[in-house]
Amino acid sequence: MQPAQKKETVPDTVIAAMRRTNELFDAEVISKQNLDALDRVYTAHARVLPPGAPMIEGREQIKDFWRHAIAGMGLTSVKLKIVQVEPAGDGVIEIGRADLSVAGGQVVTVKYVVCWKQEDGEWKWNIDIWNVNH
Amino acid sequence: MQPAQKKETVPDTVIAAMRRTNELFDAEVISKQNLDALDRVYTAHARVLPPGAPMIEGREQIKDFWRHAIAGMGLTSVKLKIVQVEPAGDGVIEIGRADLSVAGGQVVTVKYVVCWKQEDGEWKWNIDIWNVNH
Repeated sequence: MQPAQKKETVPDTVIAAMRRTNELFDAEVISKQNLDALDRVYTAHARVLPPGAPMIEGREQIKDFWRHAIAGMGLTSVKLKIVQVEPAGDGVIEIGRADLSVAGGQVVTVKYVVCWKQEDGEWKWNIDIWNVNH
Repeated sequence: MQPAQKKETVPDTVIAAMRRTNELFDAEVISKQNLDALDRVYTAHARVLPPGAPMIEGREQIKDFWRHAIAGMGLTSVKLKIVQVEPAGDGVIEIGRADLSVAGGQVVTVKYVVCWKQEDGEWKWNIDIWNVNH
């Protein structure tokens, strides 16, 4: 049972685990194009709401999405930065910023909301939506 | 203290309250251009992450945003449809779809994630992000 608090915070250990997942996405999925590492980034029931496409659900569709996104955009890195976090029951809501390095050396900056859940002891993305600033 | 459950659900009474807020946004804010009604739609600490602009926070900035969006896009209605809801502690996370009627009779469809909180007994948008499907 949680005590009544005006402002709840997310424990540092959870934020550290979230950072590890965010870094895994960049280091394994994007840089090495290891799509199977997405199983350690997204929950089994994750939903992704990308700009320019309908919502997608589930591991296979999410792998297909990122396979095509990496190839189509020429993605070489995605640097994720936590901007705000707030507890949400057994999950965490993150507002963040991502710098995407794409073909031709350009960097595209997007802002995002990720709803996190714990699965198999790891913190993973359960809902993932983003858009560009300009 | 909540019992351990495999799948929690959002009470129908809460979903009904969410629908009322969503309808208020269309009926008052958009249709009547009553920007002050945004105080009943967004929490005092709400954050809005619109496509094409940086994140904005707080009531005055949010009113400015919607004032310009309504005028700039020629918005005449925004029909919101709840697609999925899940409990998130003392809040609710909604995935939804919005049909925006804009200048020239066109309809733009967007998908969104809204993180809801209760404030002054009403269910309101605490984090609001969306993007277009095409």
